Parts: sequence; C-alpha cells; structure tokens
Amino acid sequence: MSLFVQKFGGTSVANLERIRNVAKRVAKTYDRGNDVVVVVSAMAGTTDSLIKMAEEVTESPSKRELDMLLATGEQTSAALLAMTLQSMGYKAVSFLGHQAEVCTDRAFGNARILEIGAGRIKEAIGKKKIVVLAGFQGADPNGDITTLGRGGSDTSAVAIAVAICADVCEIYTDVDGIYTADPNICEKARKIKEISYDEMLNMASLGAKVLQIRSVGFAKKYNIPVHVRSSFSEEEGTMVVNEDSGMEQLVVSGVTHNKDEARITLKKVPDQPGIAAKIFDPIADAGIMVDMIIQNTRAGGQTDLTFTVPKKDYKQALEIEQKVAKEIEAEEVWGDPNIAKVSVIGVGMKNHSGVASIMFHTLAKENINIIMISTSEIRISCIVEEKYTELAVRVLHTAFGLDSDT
Amino acid sequence: MSLFVQKFGGTSVANLERIRNVAKRVAKTYDRGNDVVVVVSAMAGTTDSLIKMAEEVTESPSKRELDMLLATGEQTSAALLAMTLQSMGYKAVSFLGHQAEVCTDRAFGNARILEIGAGRIKEAIGKKKIVVLAGFQGADPNGDITTLGRGGSDTSAVAIAVAICADVCEIYTDVDGIYTADPNICEKARKIKEISYDEMLNMASLGAKVLQIRSVGFAKKYNIPVHVRSSFSEEEGTMVVNEDSGMEQLVVSGVTHNKDEARITLKKVPDQPGIAAKIFDPIADAGIMVDMIIQNTRAGGQTDLTFTVPKKDYKQALEIEQKVAKEIEAEEVWGDPNIAKVSVIGVGMKNHSGVASIMFHTLAKENINIIMISTSEIRISCIVEEKYTELAVRVLHTAFGLDSDT
Repeated sequence: MSLFVQKFGGTSVANLERIRNVAKRVAKTYDRGNDVVVVVSAMAGTTDSLIKMAEEVTESPSKRELDMLLATGEQTSAALLAMTLQSMGYKAVSFLGHQAEVCTDRAFGNARILEIGAGRIKEAIGKKKIVVLAGFQGADPNGDITTLGRGGSDTSAVAIAVAICADVCEIYTDVDGIYTADPNICEKARKIKEISYDEMLNMASLGAKVLQIRSVGFAKKYNIPVHVRSSFSEEEGTMVVNEDSGMEQLVVSGVTHNKDEARITLKKVPDQPGIAAKIFDPIADAGIMVDMIIQNTRAGGQTDLTFTVPKKDYKQALEIEQKVAKEIEAEEVWGDPNIAKVSVIGVGMKNHSGVASIMFHTLAKENINIIMISTSEIRISCIVEEKYTELAVRVLHTAFGLDSDT
Repeated sequence: MSLFVQKFGGTSVANLERIRNVAKRVAKTYDRGNDVVVVVSAMAGTTDSLIKMAEEVTESPSKRELDMLLATGEQTSAALLAMTLQSMGYKAVSFLGHQAEVCTDRAFGNARILEIGAGRIKEAIGKKKIVVLAGFQGADPNGDITTLGRGGSDTSAVAIAVAICADVCEIYTDVDGIYTADPNICEKARKIKEISYDEMLNMASLGAKVLQIRSVGFAKKYNIPVHVRSSFSEEEGTMVVNEDSGMEQLVVSGVTHNKDEARITLKKVPDQPGIAAKIFDPIADAGIMVDMIIQNTRAGGQTDLTFTVPKKDYKQALEIEQKVAKEIEAEEVWGDPNIAKVSVIGVGMKNHSGVASIMFHTLAKENINIIMISTSEIRISCIVEEKYTELAVRVLHTAFGLDSDT
C-alpha cells in the first residue's frame, strides 16, 4: 500500500469523457489498496480563453485579478473530477489551493510555494477518500488567490507529495516519458527509464515540454521520486530520482538542443574593471535573460565579449548594445540569430574525463564549427550554426552510445 | 457621502460590454464621493451551463462538489468587473465569499449566512477602493465553499450591507421596480415608490421575480433600505423600507396572483386528535410544501380538509393522500390543479377594517367564486378558479384605488 500523487494536465481533462478516463485510472490505483491524491490542471484551452477574455477588458490586467480569474479553471476541473469519481461509487472530495493550505508568496502569476499545510488532505486520506486538488493555485498570507505560472500544476503536485510524504508523484502527460533526444529529429532516441533530478534540471529544453523545471528543483530538494508517464497508456514512463538511488549511471544520458537563442558579440572592448556591468546592466534592466557569456582576451588590453539572449529579445538587446558600445568605445557590435545550442547531459560525466573531447571530435568530423562552449558539472553545451542542429544531435546521440539499436 | 452596496444580476453582467456598463454605473456613484461595494452574480447562462455539465457527469452530483463548481461563475464575473474598473483608472479589488468571511451553515446549494466578518472589505473601503464581491457564495466553518441558492446574490448584497453598515443596498435588475400588480395582466399597474419589508415579504409571487425573498427578511431584520431599480435606466425604482419610515400608508399596496398551486381535498375525515399529523406528515416527508390549509367541520364528528401544494407536486401529493384516506377512513379525496391565488397586500390594512369585505364584494360582483380564503395581518388571499385570475387582479386593482389614472 502506497500513497500516490497523480497529476493530470489539461489535455488529460480536456472534456468530460477524458475526465472519466482519468477517474478510471485513479480508481484503478485506489482499488489496488493505495491512497491517491489527484492534482488537476484546467481543461485544455480554458486558461487561454480566460486570459483572452481578460485581455479584451484591458491590455494589462492586474495580476491579482487575473489570478482570481484563472484559478476558476482548476476549480472547475477539480469539482468535475470529484463528481465523476463519486458517480463511480468512490468517496472523493475536491480542495482548492487555499483549502489545502498551499501558502505562496505574493508574486501573482508566478507565485512560489512557501509551505503546504495539507491538514484537510491528510484528514480526508485518513477517511480513505480520494482527494482531488486544484493545481496551479495557492493563496498568499492575506488569503488572496495566487497562481504558480504556466505548468504550475506540476509544482503543485510535487509540493503536495512532499507535504503528505507521498511515495511517488506521477505526472501524467501526453508523452510517455523523457527521451535521450527529441524523437522528431533523432529517430534512434530512446525513452529513459531513470534520470536524476540534476540531469532533468539540465535538460530544460527537452524536459520543459513535459515537466515544469521548477517542480524538479522541488522534487530534488525533498527527494520525491517523480514518474513522468503517458495518460493514454499503461506503460511505465521515466522515473526522475536521486542519482544515488542505484540507477545505472550512463556517462551521457541525453542530447538536447535549443534553437531559441541568439548571440551578440562586442568586439575590441577595452578590458577595464567594471566594463561587464556596463554591458550587462542595461540588458538586465530591460528584463532580458542572458544565458551563456564568453570572453576572449586579445592583445593590447582589449577583449571580445559574446553572449546569448532569447531569440525574441534579440533585436532589443542588439539596439541596447549598440548604444553601450559607443559609450564604452568598443569597436563593433554584431549579432547572429541563426544559432542553436546542442548539449550533452549526464551525471556520469563527473567521473569520466574525455566527454568534452568526444563531443568536439564528433562535431569536427562533420565539419560543424563550434561557436561557443559552456560547461557545468554534468553538461557540456556548444553553440553551433542553426542549420547543423539536427545533424549535431544525431551524431552525438550515436557517439555516446544512446542509439536505440545499440 | 454614503456607503452604497450595489448588486448586479446575471443579465447585467452577461458579457464584457455589459460589465463595462456596470463599471460606468459604479464609477458614477463613486465619483460623487461615495464608497461602493459591488456584488455580482455569474454572467447570465453560466450557472445553468455549469449545472448542465455536472448533470452530464452524474444524475445526482454531490452538493458540495456542485457548489465548488458553481462558485466559479461569480468568481469569474467579479474578477472581470474589478479588471474593468481598474482599466478605467479606479482602484478596485475583488473578493470571494470566504475572503469576505461570508460564513454560512453547511446546507450546500441552499446555505444560510450565519455571519459576515468583512474585515478585508472594510479595510479596502478605508483605502478608497471599489470592492467587488462575488455574490451567491460563502464558506462553511470547515472552509468548504457553499452557495446560497437561486437568487442568493440578493442575500449576499443585503448581508454585506448589514455587515459594513451601508446606507443603502441597491439591487439592479432588468425591471425598474415593484409594481402594484403584474403589468402584463393589469395595464393600469403602477410602479410603487416605497414598500415595507412586510409587504414585500407578502408579495412573494410578484416580488420573487425581482428580489430573493430571503434577502428581504434579512433587510427587515437589520433595517437596511433596499432600492430595487433597473440597470438599464437612471430612473428611481422601488424603495423597500421599514414601515415606520414615514412612507405613505396605503390601505392596499398591491395585488398579486399565483397560478403555481393546486388544491387537494379530503372529504369526511374522522375528526379525531392526531388526524392532521397523519394527513400532513407523509406530505412533509416527501418534501412537499403545503401553503394554505382550511378545515370545515361537518356534523357527526367529521370534517372536510382542503390544502394547497405547488402544482409540480400535485400528482405526487394526490397519490399520497389517496393512501392516507384509506388508512384514516376518509370518504373521498379529490383535487383541482386549475386554481389561482389572488392576494391584496398592505400594511395599512392593520388599521382599516373592511378590506376583506371590499375584496369579497368586488369578486362577487364579477361572479368569481371564492374557493378558499387565508389571511395574515397585512394580506388577504383568495383561491379562485384559474380562468378568473386576470379579471380578479384587474377589478381588485381598481377597487382599492391603485389604478395609474386615479
């Protein structure tokens, strides 16, 4: 007998028929003698149409009122799922964020969970009820309704799993797990059976599609196993677990790519203390996130500085730096939006040297030029020309022994 | 400078354009230097479509979960109205039932308000904010969401007016006030300027269309003036006030009619102690409300007993009484669904004799037979054949000097 948290996304509860399927799935787990807390998102499309309605009212709706509005989406699906379970003869009860004491900060629209009381959830479980929790929402210390940002129901699920000491948090989604690479561009991609929290965190571009990254941080902190699996099949998906949990440690677990960045280079920047702040402060002030930064020192007290920004912010960032360049008397500013970031990720990397070397050789063999490199303990990322993205992913996937036929 | 509560029903907030009109109306009151708390219903049609969705899930949805579902309707309109006011440059904030501490009992679907804290509402008013309260909803002592029954937003409005000591509670609706009779059948009907709480309570059939009767009881108890008026015009509507408030006391203030009842008669019932319980207990057990009861004692220890029930429950009540009649050895049971109740209402009646006499003579003059009579301190009701309803209303309206040209 275990305590399960099962989270179902918007497509899984898109209509009453699908809600019935979710109820059957939940009931099956319950019938095996387990306790179940279900976390639901809003029915697919609901959140978007609520946002659209708010935008018809005003271009910039107040975030507090927008959260008040958006929270109705999960409230609706939670009530409907509880009713469905009851109609099948199960004792079920729905709770909203504030009723489950999901306490957040006051960052409306992107609130962070401070703590979860879950007193009423525990009480209901004690009475062998199936609990349905409205995901995505909480309440701040004033009792105002907050939402946790897109994909926030994943965080709700992991957080509630922590609060009630669940054995596992299952995230049901429309894909059947995490893959070693995007199957759309790498047909030899395999589903990963087990992956560590840290690898998952580093797989943002692959992972974000199926699991909100913030929820992974939460799961890691409290060591809650997260099972990412399909709501349309019974097949096992991918377990996201602690790396010490005895999982097989591959050197490289996956290859990811990201075409959403652009790079900007300032040439011949005077190499003086404080120069980096002059370059990056205006970018930060504009709310633009910088990802990679590299600096090549030239002779004669000058340096070239290259960094990447999200493609959508490319033009604005370029304009900002053109002004900055004049002020700091850099020689030239230029940029390139046609780049991609290809990364290999694996906790095994820590104990294996030579991963970078294999990566560089593999790309070189295909004449793929590496424009920038950045590394972390368990990840190596290379910026390459965008047109080589798919090729780079495929050859790296083969080179690190990830192909499904190996 | 006054403190206004303004309640807008579902048709007044049916779409974003109408919500904008409501916002303008509210803003106008605010701009005159007043404080305003707005109470909103769900956008017209929302509650019905939510109920329909629940009924698709199950024939008998749990009332707790149904309330959880229905409460989203008012949450949506409250958030949208607050956003609209903000977009017009006003400081506005929305609150849900539980946030305004609208504490109710646990009678889901038809909860009664036990008390209202309204701490956050008072605080917001203190900051000169326009408060938008989601009507129709509250929370029970466990924090479960409850709803107040159809028309419950009227009760929300009056109750919040009491809690914050408002000067007046304005109920905006799609009619422009209370009339001396239904204008559809009595073209000389006049709009009433002022009416007492008690008269309003006795005008159920006329009044229920524009104002939830329960809210009138609340207003009376706490002496809150209620102004029933149109959301589509600036015209004054009808003030529902304390009868001691110096209003002109007409002998009769209005004539109402009700075609929703049917009568059942048990003939030659043995006149024994406890017999009434035997007749009415099974009716009560079936959840059927009995309105009027009359009893005519015959010679020989027998009695005829006649009572009225809602027309929709007529068949069921008749079947019940047929069984009862056998048990108690009554001679015969028969019923008639083709009846109507015509009533004259007026606080002035208390101090004027002869009202009944005028009523009976007026009906007799038109050959309208009176089948049953019941009276209260400020009301006389006669059951007549249904076909005479309109004629009866018109001649009584004239007889008591209510016609608009008099």
